[in-house]
Amino acid sequence: MTRPASRGSAKKAGLPPGTVVYVGKQKTEKTRIRSISYDDTHFEEKENKKIDETFDSANKEGVTWINVDGLQRVDVIEKIGKHFNLHPLTLEDIANTEQRPKMEDFGHYIYVVLRMLRYDQQGNEIISEQLSLILNSNLVLSFQESEGDVFDTVRERLRNEKGKIRKMGADYLLYALIDAVVDNYFAVLEKLGEKIEDIEDQVIANPEPATVQVVHNLKRQSIALRKYVWPLREVVNGLERCESGLISKATGIYLRDVYDHTIQVIDSVETFRDVLSGMLDIYLSSVSNRMNEVMKVLTIIATIFIPLTLVAGIYGMNFTYMPELSAQWGYPLVLLAMVLIAVVMLAYFKKRKWILQK
Amino acid sequence: MTRPASRGSAKKAGLPPGTVVYVGKQKTEKTRIRSISYDDTHFEEKENKKIDETFDSANKEGVTWINVDGLQRVDVIEKIGKHFNLHPLTLEDIANTEQRPKMEDFGHYIYVVLRMLRYDQQGNEIISEQLSLILNSNLVLSFQESEGDVFDTVRERLRNEKGKIRKMGADYLLYALIDAVVDNYFAVLEKLGEKIEDIEDQVIANPEPATVQVVHNLKRQSIALRKYVWPLREVVNGLERCESGLISKATGIYLRDVYDHTIQVIDSVETFRDVLSGMLDIYLSSVSNRMNEVMKVLTIIATIFIPLTLVAGIYGMNFTYMPELSAQWGYPLVLLAMVLIAVVMLAYFKKRKWILQK
Amino acid sequence: MTRPASRGSAKKAGLPPGTVVYVGKQKTEKTRIRSISYDDTHFEEKENKKIDETFDSANKEGVTWINVDGLQRVDVIEKIGKHFNLHPLTLEDIANTEQRPKMEDFGHYIYVVLRMLRYDQQGNEIISEQLSLILNSNLVLSFQESEGDVFDTVRERLRNEKGKIRKMGADYLLYALIDAVVDNYFAVLEKLGEKIEDIEDQVIANPEPATVQVVHNLKRQSIALRKYVWPLREVVNGLERCESGLISKATGIYLRDVYDHTIQVIDSVETFRDVLSGMLDIYLSSVSNRMNEVMKVLTIIATIFIPLTLVAGIYGMNFTYMPELSAQWGYPLVLLAMVLIAVVMLAYFKKRKWILQK
Amino acid sequence: MTRPASRGSAKKAGLPPGTVVYVGKQKTEKTRIRSISYDDTHFEEKENKKIDETFDSANKEGVTWINVDGLQRVDVIEKIGKHFNLHPLTLEDIANTEQRPKMEDFGHYIYVVLRMLRYDQQGNEIISEQLSLILNSNLVLSFQESEGDVFDTVRERLRNEKGKIRKMGADYLLYALIDAVVDNYFAVLEKLGEKIEDIEDQVIANPEPATVQVVHNLKRQSIALRKYVWPLREVVNGLERCESGLISKATGIYLRDVYDHTIQVIDSVETFRDVLSGMLDIYLSSVSNRMNEVMKVLTIIATIFIPLTLVAGIYGMNFTYMPELSAQWGYPLVLLAMVLIAVVMLAYFKKRKWILQK
Amino acid sequence: MTRPASRGSAKKAGLPPGTVVYVGKQKTEKTRIRSISYDDTHFEEKENKKIDETFDSANKEGVTWINVDGLQRVDVIEKIGKHFNLHPLTLEDIANTEQRPKMEDFGHYIYVVLRMLRYDQQGNEIISEQLSLILNSNLVLSFQESEGDVFDTVRERLRNEKGKIRKMGADYLLYALIDAVVDNYFAVLEKLGEKIEDIEDQVIANPEPATVQVVHNLKRQSIALRKYVWPLREVVNGLERCESGLISKATGIYLRDVYDHTIQVIDSVETFRDVLSGMLDIYLSSVSNRMNEVMKVLTIIATIFIPLTLVAGIYGMNFTYMPELSAQWGYPLVLLAMVLIAVVMLAYFKKRKWILQK
Repeated sequence: MTRPASRGSAKKAGLPPGTVVYVGKQKTEKTRIRSISYDDTHFEEKENKKIDETFDSANKEGVTWINVDGLQRVDVIEKIGKHFNLHPLTLEDIANTEQRPKMEDFGHYIYVVLRMLRYDQQGNEIISEQLSLILNSNLVLSFQESEGDVFDTVRERLRNEKGKIRKMGADYLLYALIDAVVDNYFAVLEKLGEKIEDIEDQVIANPEPATVQVVHNLKRQSIALRKYVWPLREVVNGLERCESGLISKATGIYLRDVYDHTIQVIDSVETFRDVLSGMLDIYLSSVSNRMNEVMKVLTIIATIFIPLTLVAGIYGMNFTYMPELSAQWGYPLVLLAMVLIAVVMLAYFKKRKWILQK
Repeated sequence: MTRPASRGSAKKAGLPPGTVVYVGKQKTEKTRIRSISYDDTHFEEKENKKIDETFDSANKEGVTWINVDGLQRVDVIEKIGKHFNLHPLTLEDIANTEQRPKMEDFGHYIYVVLRMLRYDQQGNEIISEQLSLILNSNLVLSFQESEGDVFDTVRERLRNEKGKIRKMGADYLLYALIDAVVDNYFAVLEKLGEKIEDIEDQVIANPEPATVQVVHNLKRQSIALRKYVWPLREVVNGLERCESGLISKATGIYLRDVYDHTIQVIDSVETFRDVLSGMLDIYLSSVSNRMNEVMKVLTIIATIFIPLTLVAGIYGMNFTYMPELSAQWGYPLVLLAMVLIAVVMLAYFKKRKWILQK
Repeated sequence: MTRPASRGSAKKAGLPPGTVVYVGKQKTEKTRIRSISYDDTHFEEKENKKIDETFDSANKEGVTWINVDGLQRVDVIEKIGKHFNLHPLTLEDIANTEQRPKMEDFGHYIYVVLRMLRYDQQGNEIISEQLSLILNSNLVLSFQESEGDVFDTVRERLRNEKGKIRKMGADYLLYALIDAVVDNYFAVLEKLGEKIEDIEDQVIANPEPATVQVVHNLKRQSIALRKYVWPLREVVNGLERCESGLISKATGIYLRDVYDHTIQVIDSVETFRDVLSGMLDIYLSSVSNRMNEVMKVLTIIATIFIPLTLVAGIYGMNFTYMPELSAQWGYPLVLLAMVLIAVVMLAYFKKRKWILQK
Repeated sequence: MTRPASRGSAKKAGLPPGTVVYVGKQKTEKTRIRSISYDDTHFEEKENKKIDETFDSANKEGVTWINVDGLQRVDVIEKIGKHFNLHPLTLEDIANTEQRPKMEDFGHYIYVVLRMLRYDQQGNEIISEQLSLILNSNLVLSFQESEGDVFDTVRERLRNEKGKIRKMGADYLLYALIDAVVDNYFAVLEKLGEKIEDIEDQVIANPEPATVQVVHNLKRQSIALRKYVWPLREVVNGLERCESGLISKATGIYLRDVYDHTIQVIDSVETFRDVLSGMLDIYLSSVSNRMNEVMKVLTIIATIFIPLTLVAGIYGMNFTYMPELSAQWGYPLVLLAMVLIAVVMLAYFKKRKWILQK
Repeated sequence: MTRPASRGSAKKAGLPPGTVVYVGKQKTEKTRIRSISYDDTHFEEKENKKIDETFDSANKEGVTWINVDGLQRVDVIEKIGKHFNLHPLTLEDIANTEQRPKMEDFGHYIYVVLRMLRYDQQGNEIISEQLSLILNSNLVLSFQESEGDVFDTVRERLRNEKGKIRKMGADYLLYALIDAVVDNYFAVLEKLGEKIEDIEDQVIANPEPATVQVVHNLKRQSIALRKYVWPLREVVNGLERCESGLISKATGIYLRDVYDHTIQVIDSVETFRDVLSGMLDIYLSSVSNRMNEVMKVLTIIATIFIPLTLVAGIYGMNFTYMPELSAQWGYPLVLLAMVLIAVVMLAYFKKRKWILQK
């Protein structure tokens, strides 16, 4: 997220299109393939060592969901692509994990890319992982960069024989996965919102240079978040209106619900940006005020003591003929005069309200 | 309103769609159901203990308005949903009180979500409550988070046998409710406008750091208000153009009127934002001016007294051979010189207009 | 214009739609009704005491223009509405003088709302008055908040038997009235432009805190003006494309001309806003420069005199053994040294260009 | 350009539409009419004293271009309008020289308004002149405010028997004229670009208050330029898609080329605006830096000398019992101590890098 | 890139359209023509001295790619134009190397202009070169300003007999070339991203005036980059939807992929702009903080020493009657009092947290 340019794409520059190259950080974990097959009455969940066993599940009746964790094994992706007749560009996009969220309709299948987000509390940053989804008539393929996802609740609902999801088709499963991803955004937003509130209190109570950096950092996170979320609107809209017949009208209504959530997320991100922009203004006015305060102290001290110093200097002069010097009450009178000058000055500052506020 | 992320939605994340969960602040009040049935000649108003009694009213001829206050009793919402054949997602949205204003046409009914606003004088903030409206051929259902609403005038008009509303259908009732909500926005805008005027006077007369916080707070309220009001335009527009036949052409003209009011509200909110942005500029220029003034005082004092102190210092030196010291008029002449220096300096500052403005 | 929220609407909140309530400032003047009937050869102008007499004029052949000044007499508006079969919402909008400019096509008549502007030289603000126009096949109705309008030239042209306007229909009269209103905007723009030019000179020559307030005030006027003018574009466009047949193609060409003028007005308002925004930047940089200048004077004075004071202080010390003190040339040499230090310092400042600019 | 409101239009306010009034600055030059008739083989160029002679040229076969310099003689414009059957509004727009660029299709002719620009080196401002073009089947009429234009190259190409332009119709001539106007914009842009580069160097090297005024002035010129150029896009687009059959498909391709140039001009203007906005930021940060530098000098001087002055002051006290005073090495030791204090202070400032940068 | 106005176009102003004039910097290199012909089985690559030999290659079956490096030899361009029946405006655009990216469909051929970018490490600027591409049924023509391009990988793929590109038509070759150009943008973005990161660290760690200039420079580069990239979206979109039949549906899918990359590039550029804008804010707040710090040091020093100097001054007065002077403990007590005053002052500053932060 720190580097705005997508390095991975630069790494790939010059290769022919459709070349499947994994551009993410090289994770050493193995590629793991799990499949779930279900219909109204049956349910089968297994983890396959060999990729070909997976294809058997997909041949059964009912809906099959094949999930691939880890994208280093380019050969696996290519095998799956060949078996399900996926376009080379789709395979390239699956492996190139710096896609913008998008939705592409290839007629016999729909390809959806999303960003799965996670808030890293230590690093104070949003971690994003690419999720590729492929829907054909009775199958959903999902590709993730690494293990660990937001789909546990979906799996639980699939295992429950009475769940509505068991009665619906693959398009509903696709919807359920997208919905889980978008629902998870709210958790990330909440974390970010807490950070923003914390820093907001700090900006007002104790504005330090470090605060600006934190605000700046949060701003960059909002910019990144926005980049992930904005295109989502189009994606969901595209699915809802897609003409390939892979998505039923009943599921369309559910997608409209996801669309509403997406708009809510975008609204929140925009609000974050507005609030963060305002925070910098508050910071600057805080700093100005502090400077003002410092200047006032300096001015008050200087304005009171410099004239007094002059008075002392005058009576420190060595003129032979200075009648005041030999007067008996000269010294106490001068001290009194000094106190008077100081009091008058203070009264003047009080009148101008420079001291009240101190 | 302080937390931009919608916490409620995070709380719900992972549940299957269509799960009806109340996400608002847990209010302990009971759910209260009131129904009004009327046509040209009849009028009946009652409060039902049991939800089934309510359904009887809806079966009568004429128009029925069922109002539900309090959304904790999820079972009540589900029972109503079942009886009137509402989509599970509608029920979910009714209970999930963080919806954006929207309008959805399900064919046999129309679902509208609005935000009912109230200005909390103590907390200086805008309180928003979700209002769900459902229209089918001869029925309006309204769901509110808590008791107390802006519909008293509508009820009054319903009770009046000669009111136009008694002669019109359920779509006109829907319009009347939306109109009451939007009309109420003007009251909230007025309160906010007063606050803005107050702070505006303060920014000019007496800019303090606290003022910036108030401006910032009002800005956030404008942002929130905007979030509630912007989507409304689309909602009303959608109703006016809706193709389900549930809304008559005659009512469409009235909706156009609501649309105009919505635009007026949006205009006002945008003006507020413009004005509040300008206020910060004024504040900063005020602070700059004050700093300038403080600096001038310091500079005038320092510039007058430092040279005088030097003169006094010179005649305080202990050189054996300093002819001026023994001169009889030395002392008064030096004092005179000092006064002259001070006068010249002051004249210089006056010429540069540094003092005039003081 | 100061209060952004429309108070009048709040006053009305809760009343049934179509309730005709005058929401403007309660003007005590009577309602005055004047009618002009004309065709190619005839012309008749009269002022009616009773509203019914007015209806007689409208029944004649040719075109009739009925102008109503003053909207307090709600009964008059309702009588007119009943006679010409106007929609209750139209009547409500006529009396509710806080409408946004809009155009509504009711089939048998077209309703247009405009803002008639006037620049109040004393208060330095733009006064806006609502003008409602209604066109049906051979009649134009105009409703103004108070007497005094921009239509004198239109009346003059109507009186002139050879004027083109006498040969055209009611739609052309409507156009002529709108054109007169828009033409008048240029006069208001010019006044505002003069104020902006005045303040611009002031910002550069003599930036004072009061200037910022004037800039801010002009900005608010531009915001208000924009609110009146932006929707006009849509209004004129709507008239040009209106399908009710009430507006002939020949008049359409003239409306295109009004449209061009509207765009010109909008362009000017946007330019004003740009210029006013830039002015604040100039002001701030002016203030910064002044502060810089003040700081330089202080620094120069302090930097020259503080070292000299130290020298004087050193030779004012009372050490027994200070050989310089008894030297005959000690005193003049020290004075010379002081002058040298001052000259060197001044040369240094000159080199750094701190003094040149003073 | 200084006055954003269009004064001319105010001058005209109240006149009936179609009244031909010249609103520009009253130029005393005579109206001058020149006509060029040509086809593949013939070419005739003449200057007509009487307007009627001009009409003879237009009756010939081939293409005729009539150019009118000077718009004060309203009767000439009206005569031409009558002869070629032009709409009164077109005549009004020709004389009213404050039109926005626009294109109007009247069926039997097309009316185009453009702004011809010139950069006035003395006044450092962009002078704009209105150019009205009228195209009918075999004729182009052009109206300019004053003599002197950018069409010399077009005339040259017309005189050249082998030029492509001689083989094409009147629509191509119209294109050639518009192209010449747009090409000329690049020269103006270049001049403005040079000014911006000059001021940019100045802002960085020597930021003075006068610089801000120049930046502000350039900004206003960009705003004005933008106003002239933006609508042009629509104009050229409108010509390309115009349905009156007056513009051939072959010429359409050439208009697409003008369109590209227009976009280039707009791009440059937008870049200018971006660059100028950035310049103010640089200026402000420059001023801040200078202030910082001044403050550092003051602080260094004050911090070094004020403590030394205190030391001198202490040993200038007149206490009877001050053992140091009578010590033989007292004076040189105190001087040494002073030097040490100064050195330590300087070392401290060096460590904090306050001096390095000086 | 420094001069926003396109000088070349000004140089050309006044020439008839379709005049082929090279407007780039006059490069002395010769024009170099290379052609590659290929189909599934054959491959031929040659460099032609004479332009006519090139035409022979194009007549063969299969796809031919003719690449022209260097555009000074206008006669060569015109010869090519004549042979392939290109529109004069296309030839003009090829030579006029300041085109905006665009796509034009001439029916029998498609003309595409792109900008090929290169990051010049020395000058820290983006160098842009115009690339013109022409596609007809079995031929791609490419025109570059100078030798050296980003197409080496494409050539390599063409040489490889098994490459997919060998089996596809000329439209796929066009896609491959555009793809190579866009892929190269990522490399430029990465370089720019590194510069931005470097400067970001500097702004926070060590804000100097020079930093602002670098930020400003990077901002201008982003503006320039944006100008090159924004229109690309439309170009690729236009190709995808082009109706001339020159681009097959299969290639359309690949173009959609390029479109996605274009959007990614635009996203990055926009992020750069956001980040750079934020950086200036950080810089200004850094400078403010430093100023604050300097002021605090000055204030602390002045506030501590000025009162002490007054005390010393008082006891330096020469009054005859000052009892303290002759007291034996007078001197040490005064010194003690001075230390106490200093300690109290320091404690006060510590309490106000002015020193902690130092």
